[in-house]
Amino acid sequence: MKLTTYLRGTTPRLALVDGDDLIDLHDAQPGVPADLRQALKAGVDLHAAARQALADKPRRIPRTSVKLAPLVPEPGKIVCLGLNYFDHAKEGGRDKPEYPWFFFRAASSLIAHGEAGQVPRVSGKFDYEAELAVVIGQRVPRHTKQAQALQYVFGYSCFNDMSVRDYQKRTPQWTIGKNFDATGAFGPVLVTADELPPGATGLRIQGRLNGQVMQDADTSDMIFSVTETIELLADVLTLEPGDVIVMGTPAGVGQARTPPVWMKPGDSFEVEIERVGLLSNPIEAQRA
Amino acid sequence: MKLTTYLRGTTPRLALVDGDDLIDLHDAQPGVPADLRQALKAGVDLHAAARQALADKPRRIPRTSVKLAPLVPEPGKIVCLGLNYFDHAKEGGRDKPEYPWFFFRAASSLIAHGEAGQVPRVSGKFDYEAELAVVIGQRVPRHTKQAQALQYVFGYSCFNDMSVRDYQKRTPQWTIGKNFDATGAFGPVLVTADELPPGATGLRIQGRLNGQVMQDADTSDMIFSVTETIELLADVLTLEPGDVIVMGTPAGVGQARTPPVWMKPGDSFEVEIERVGLLSNPIEAQRA
Repeated sequence: MKLTTYLRGTTPRLALVDGDDLIDLHDAQPGVPADLRQALKAGVDLHAAARQALADKPRRIPRTSVKLAPLVPEPGKIVCLGLNYFDHAKEGGRDKPEYPWFFFRAASSLIAHGEAGQVPRVSGKFDYEAELAVVIGQRVPRHTKQAQALQYVFGYSCFNDMSVRDYQKRTPQWTIGKNFDATGAFGPVLVTADELPPGATGLRIQGRLNGQVMQDADTSDMIFSVTETIELLADVLTLEPGDVIVMGTPAGVGQARTPPVWMKPGDSFEVEIERVGLLSNPIEAQRA
Repeated sequence: MKLTTYLRGTTPRLALVDGDDLIDLHDAQPGVPADLRQALKAGVDLHAAARQALADKPRRIPRTSVKLAPLVPEPGKIVCLGLNYFDHAKEGGRDKPEYPWFFFRAASSLIAHGEAGQVPRVSGKFDYEAELAVVIGQRVPRHTKQAQALQYVFGYSCFNDMSVRDYQKRTPQWTIGKNFDATGAFGPVLVTADELPPGATGLRIQGRLNGQVMQDADTSDMIFSVTETIELLADVLTLEPGDVIVMGTPAGVGQARTPPVWMKPGDSFEVEIERVGLLSNPIEAQRA
């Protein structure tokens, strides 16, 4: 099953993706909250709701007729991993980490598929990072182990963890360089976990700048797998429905190139993950 | 005006603090959302609502008869500053920073006044940090300057940024050591900005472990003031109603002592800020 979040006016709405059409799940099944996080929190069986919605001959919305929103518009938390592919750690002059370099993003940084990533007014060092995103479906009990971790994963999507490199390195804390407005692209669709290999391993992941392949790797190259990451996080905190884990990026980022490559207004960047989707964003100068 | 958030059953409710009583603002004024963030987002004039509520002879709830919730139960973001008092930077062997060491907390780490801070099962290096918290009242336009910053501040409260020091230092990213469940104490009351000096400067801030003064400073000792912090953040991101900025801690933390002092089950820690309030939390072993 594939889900997305689209905009009706300015309100994000959860939809089932059926071929080239969207089906608004709350319209079709009024018991289903219109927000993905709220639907997961309420414990709605979204697979059953989707089957029922399809059986009821619902109103179909052509996918190309609407704008999307970030896949989970307002996650409770967005946990990101740095340096989670060895070749990327190496290109940054870092060793293979023994523990994930976790940092958080805020929802205020998110944009949708098709929405512009914005080069900040205060910096031109605007880089891309193609990543796999994990959406948590159910509360993960503290101290959950790897073997049980995947039962709490609802699905997977694509993420572009656009990074403002000089701000990221102004202090040892990367957070601020990862939280500029309009830098966290998330979508376009969620593919539920049942349609993918366990932990979304063995999937090709590419990042392309203006069509040119800049990053090309396999999700099996991740140092910390989805299951191991969930186990490590469960030692610390409670992952809740709608929380997002962004799994880190492979080699090929712009800052590691000679000369460095920065994204500029007029560029576009695509993140493509095999069987998960294609996330595309134009790049513009900061608006406000 | 003083506001707080208390629990009715398991639901957080916004209340006006009037002496020893609370007045539920949504009960008194049904147009006021029961959640502080939502009330601010809706642009409700909370001063006017509170005046009207008082004039209407509302039902009074004795403050001691209820449990509190974190002051803003689910902020859009919680931006924290590290090393924002020079004497604290120095005790950690750090220079005076030229830019704030920003990191984020998630709402899942928050606890209320009176609720137990939990020593994690995986670590005993559990430290305290007395801090001033700033609650944003209105969206801060990007690139707002210091001189305009305070018009967006709704009020101030106390925060104990309890830190799990070994996890904080497992990698250069502090985030994970700052986000254990039940480690971010926030409250008990919000004092609106009109009742305090501009930027809450010149206020004594103390941290006390089992009644013994461990931290004792003045908010004017902060390296980055509230106004400067807002200006720096506005270069990066949009601060939104209900967002929280946690302003960093003065010297005297447990890890900098010889031998180090860690909080243990049975302890209690108080954060007191002059004219802002007294936040007290018992310390317990992790429950779940």
